Amino acid sequence: MTLPQSFGWIGLGAMGYPMAMNLRKRIPTDSILLVNDVDRTAVERFIRESSEFGRVVEAATARDVAEQSSCVFTMVPEGRHVKDVFLTPGTGILAANTAGKLLIDCSTIDRASSIEVAEAVKASSAVGNPTRFYDAPVSGGTLGAAKATLTFMVGIAADDPNFPVLRELLALMGGAIHPMGGQSLGLAAKLSNNYISSLNALSTAEGMNLAIRLGLDPKVFSNVMKTSSGGSYANSVYNPVPGVCPEAPSSKGYEGGFKIQLMKKDVGLAIDAARQVDAKVVLGLTGLGVYSAASEDPRFRDKDARIVYRWLGGIEPKL
Amino acid sequence: MTLPQSFGWIGLGAMGYPMAMNLRKRIPTDSILLVNDVDRTAVERFIRESSEFGRVVEAATARDVAEQSSCVFTMVPEGRHVKDVFLTPGTGILAANTAGKLLIDCSTIDRASSIEVAEAVKASSAVGNPTRFYDAPVSGGTLGAAKATLTFMVGIAADDPNFPVLRELLALMGGAIHPMGGQSLGLAAKLSNNYISSLNALSTAEGMNLAIRLGLDPKVFSNVMKTSSGGSYANSVYNPVPGVCPEAPSSKGYEGGFKIQLMKKDVGLAIDAARQVDAKVVLGLTGLGVYSAASEDPRFRDKDARIVYRWLGGIEPKL
Amino acid sequence: MTLPQSFGWIGLGAMGYPMAMNLRKRIPTDSILLVNDVDRTAVERFIRESSEFGRVVEAATARDVAEQSSCVFTMVPEGRHVKDVFLTPGTGILAANTAGKLLIDCSTIDRASSIEVAEAVKASSAVGNPTRFYDAPVSGGTLGAAKATLTFMVGIAADDPNFPVLRELLALMGGAIHPMGGQSLGLAAKLSNNYISSLNALSTAEGMNLAIRLGLDPKVFSNVMKTSSGGSYANSVYNPVPGVCPEAPSSKGYEGGFKIQLMKKDVGLAIDAARQVDAKVVLGLTGLGVYSAASEDPRFRDKDARIVYRWLGGIEPKL
Amino acid sequence: MTLPQSFGWIGLGAMGYPMAMNLRKRIPTDSILLVNDVDRTAVERFIRESSEFGRVVEAATARDVAEQSSCVFTMVPEGRHVKDVFLTPGTGILAANTAGKLLIDCSTIDRASSIEVAEAVKASSAVGNPTRFYDAPVSGGTLGAAKATLTFMVGIAADDPNFPVLRELLALMGGAIHPMGGQSLGLAAKLSNNYISSLNALSTAEGMNLAIRLGLDPKVFSNVMKTSSGGSYANSVYNPVPGVCPEAPSSKGYEGGFKIQLMKKDVGLAIDAARQVDAKVVLGLTGLGVYSAASEDPRFRDKDARIVYRWLGGIEPKL
Repeated sequence: MTLPQSFGWIGLGAMGYPMAMNLRKRIPTDSILLVNDVDRTAVERFIRESSEFGRVVEAATARDVAEQSSCVFTMVPEGRHVKDVFLTPGTGILAANTAGKLLIDCSTIDRASSIEVAEAVKASSAVGNPTRFYDAPVSGGTLGAAKATLTFMVGIAADDPNFPVLRELLALMGGAIHPMGGQSLGLAAKLSNNYISSLNALSTAEGMNLAIRLGLDPKVFSNVMKTSSGGSYANSVYNPVPGVCPEAPSSKGYEGGFKIQLMKKDVGLAIDAARQVDAKVVLGLTGLGVYSAASEDPRFRDKDARIVYRWLGGIEPKL
Repeated sequence: MTLPQSFGWIGLGAMGYPMAMNLRKRIPTDSILLVNDVDRTAVERFIRESSEFGRVVEAATARDVAEQSSCVFTMVPEGRHVKDVFLTPGTGILAANTAGKLLIDCSTIDRASSIEVAEAVKASSAVGNPTRFYDAPVSGGTLGAAKATLTFMVGIAADDPNFPVLRELLALMGGAIHPMGGQSLGLAAKLSNNYISSLNALSTAEGMNLAIRLGLDPKVFSNVMKTSSGGSYANSVYNPVPGVCPEAPSSKGYEGGFKIQLMKKDVGLAIDAARQVDAKVVLGLTGLGVYSAASEDPRFRDKDARIVYRWLGGIEPKL
Repeated sequence: MTLPQSFGWIGLGAMGYPMAMNLRKRIPTDSILLVNDVDRTAVERFIRESSEFGRVVEAATARDVAEQSSCVFTMVPEGRHVKDVFLTPGTGILAANTAGKLLIDCSTIDRASSIEVAEAVKASSAVGNPTRFYDAPVSGGTLGAAKATLTFMVGIAADDPNFPVLRELLALMGGAIHPMGGQSLGLAAKLSNNYISSLNALSTAEGMNLAIRLGLDPKVFSNVMKTSSGGSYANSVYNPVPGVCPEAPSSKGYEGGFKIQLMKKDVGLAIDAARQVDAKVVLGLTGLGVYSAASEDPRFRDKDARIVYRWLGGIEPKL
Repeated sequence: MTLPQSFGWIGLGAMGYPMAMNLRKRIPTDSILLVNDVDRTAVERFIRESSEFGRVVEAATARDVAEQSSCVFTMVPEGRHVKDVFLTPGTGILAANTAGKLLIDCSTIDRASSIEVAEAVKASSAVGNPTRFYDAPVSGGTLGAAKATLTFMVGIAADDPNFPVLRELLALMGGAIHPMGGQSLGLAAKLSNNYISSLNALSTAEGMNLAIRLGLDPKVFSNVMKTSSGGSYANSVYNPVPGVCPEAPSSKGYEGGFKIQLMKKDVGLAIDAARQVDAKVVLGLTGLGVYSAASEDPRFRDKDARIVYRWLGGIEPKL
């Protein structure tokens, strides 16, 4: 597989917009970027803001995107949107001639939808000139998307001959590019990681609140945990207590970061996947209850997920 | 406060024995070490094994220990034992003349008992020549105790003039010595840290099992998590899946490490403390249920706490 | 307070429609019923189907309903809808002259919204001829609504002089009419009851599954529980296992009954209320996690809440 | 099977003592009762207090009991005790000649131990004159034991020809005698029932506290629940709020009733059984956490399990 020369992008939301922008900035100036989104305003704004970096053209349908580009990225909210984009008769990606093309879905969705699309791609693939589809969800949030420092977890084997091309492409928008072993395993890794991180965020929020109420200074305690058994990314990078990590959303009014309703969505997807493979989830159901309750409350919705600390009634040091 | 010249040790169990041994090895050869334990066999063995390093003498009671040494360490299982050792009329530490002496309790116990002892020490303290009592629980397990790499969380302020002496003494048995701010805050830090670590161990066990059942290679996934939001000590140092961390108890049949019933005890102590200060615990109650259920089962009891992975029905890679 | 002669109804959904129909059938033939709903089709159908029982007239706005009737019932999905119906400037109920009128909200909503509306009613109430507002949520589902056997939990004191009129009116649509003590306490009772019933449904589902897997016959076991400590409405009336209660939704493919997403909504409202009054909820968060996970799954959504039994992987006897 | 003429009783604890007393009172005066317990004082007291009702003789070992009686009851705390009593070489029941005898274990223990004993009995049983062993755990507590109103859940089929004799015997000590279908199913029913009742007690405690904090009168609310979906034995018979059920332990300082540590034990046994048959337990683990935490606290230990209401911080009406 060689590097594609024409590109398509479907989905210009909070994540997709900055990712597509980084793509446009870093692909050759003379290559074309086809874009499509249900929100025409986003498309128009994108064309306006990106055209200094190269040619950007609106495509009327997902099929049109796929028809005119050799590599298509998709970044949409849910499994049903991915299925719509790929499978809608007449206007979906698979209604185009995709022989030899590369289709990369960066959405975080349920495995079933991704596997369904992967199989449809395979079934429609031309003999001798296959279409390739990869799940490549990201972590790093809107900040990582803007700074092109996203981590990609990719549903491909490390020794797959196509991986080098994928890595080169994804590196235009991210930092670490992890091959997770095979089809759908990018999603599997994303969901399993977020399942754990959502719970570690909550355990750390509970334990920090306990510590502070017992009289400990949050920064001193967090610092000790960095080299103790309670240590984690949730403690040292995204500590839920305001002021402990100055750069974390908790220190900025829980703005930025990863929205709590998206955390709830990911925990839900992980639990659904767990049921399918008969993996026992215990803490996760309690955690889902907490994220669900907090997400419904207008004071917490749209804030960084670590606002569960406030939901818990955590003591907030003055900043 | 100057460095004490005579030492006492009460409690020669799984942790206390190797700690006292390191103490004996590192204090001046000509200083005396008084020892006491309810288990006479342990005392005799200790004297036999330690006498090459200096003078070790059995004391009949805790009072006798305190009478004859200027610094006494205690390391016993539960709050009631600490209270017995200090407060028993006639034979307890406080029945001795402890003016100017240093009493250091390394046990992990409930705060209420520690505070009760601290107040009794204060009440019995001589004017102008006070007795000093500090809570200084440890983490690091029996391995840390043996290697003198324990972490101490000490109930003292960083700028307390007595801290340098405490640090010098505890460094004979450990690595990091953390002043946590004041009386009882060593215990507060220990319990809060273990509360979080017990939950992170369980969340990681659940998420690893999910990942493996979804098809991921445990080492590859764990490695990706090291730089992702799911990362933690529970992932990178004490991963619950056999084979992921070759040095972890999980890779050695869950032998060594921190016994699951002790993890249960610590979570229980943390939850009890949380009730006292009105800190909401959510995941902790579910976690306590799991550790409680697993601790009762003879297949898991006495094994490292990370055996919750097996309790969950986690898939175990062949080693 | 005397019985009103003209009536208004706002909200002709799954519950409101049959309730309003029973009202129309049972109020005097010559009294008028004003109706309003955002769904014009529902209004037209209602007028078509009810006009044989007496006069029914569409009102363009909630204000028009209130202007032309001395008693207005509201039955809408959420707190924000109730607030819209009452408080929208110009077109809401409180834009009308409501002096001396009776306003009864049967919706199951969050307390905060209900209290906000109650206070707005009070503030706008005429001196000497007050407007009266009561929260009167129902239980009994669409079947109870159709058969006029609903249970009403009313936010009024048992000895309030207005209660007899309220009781007479509500009895047109229901069976038991419970005065719960005062304003907002109808909702408090509804949410507290549903909180408990949602958990008992789940505990019974879990325990029945355990019993069946251990070899017990579900009917025999359920029967024994009827006189044992495990007994409950969840066991004897709405048993989650197919075939145990022939009339329960579980025996009819989980059709009918109380939709699982509404159960989730009520548990969420109860937990939110609990946070406000500092009531500890423990099981509820785990329960919310389960109902949340199951509600998201298309196989369970829109089914009776007792389908959590299937979500749990419960063994289903052949019917 | 005909009614036995000589009886044996092993285990004279809080439950066994009054049960054996009722047995002695109701069997023919001229029949003998052999008794055995590890606590000699209990045996002596029993003989002193019961001898007015007929002959009672101490037996030195379980084997001696079984040797001299045609029907033996056992009532001991845990599975390991049952195994000791039956299987200890030389002194256990099975060391006696038990051909044709009836062995009834009323203990609430883990299924594995019961099945192990059942199989050992079967293996040692004489051809043509079998020994019979039944699990027959009880519910009803010490009060039911004293009043001979216990409910028995018996591991036997309803149409088993031996059931009439069993029923007649157990009716000497209880009220309802339920044949649960076959060997070990008495225990299965007991554990499943207690699993559910422990959770319903907790859900009711949480919901009652919520209701009271929202302003509801506990008796009024409890009364409404009796005919609503939140209704249960936990509400109407053993309501956890003081004053709601005047006869319940909660109204008597949580004295009497079912000790919280025994509730914890039963939930633990149920969860262990659930793991064996792959029944998903969700609420149960959170519930076990609560009962475990509360059982460890000296303020709650030895009190009726419904004291979880106080553990939750429930508001207690003045009695």
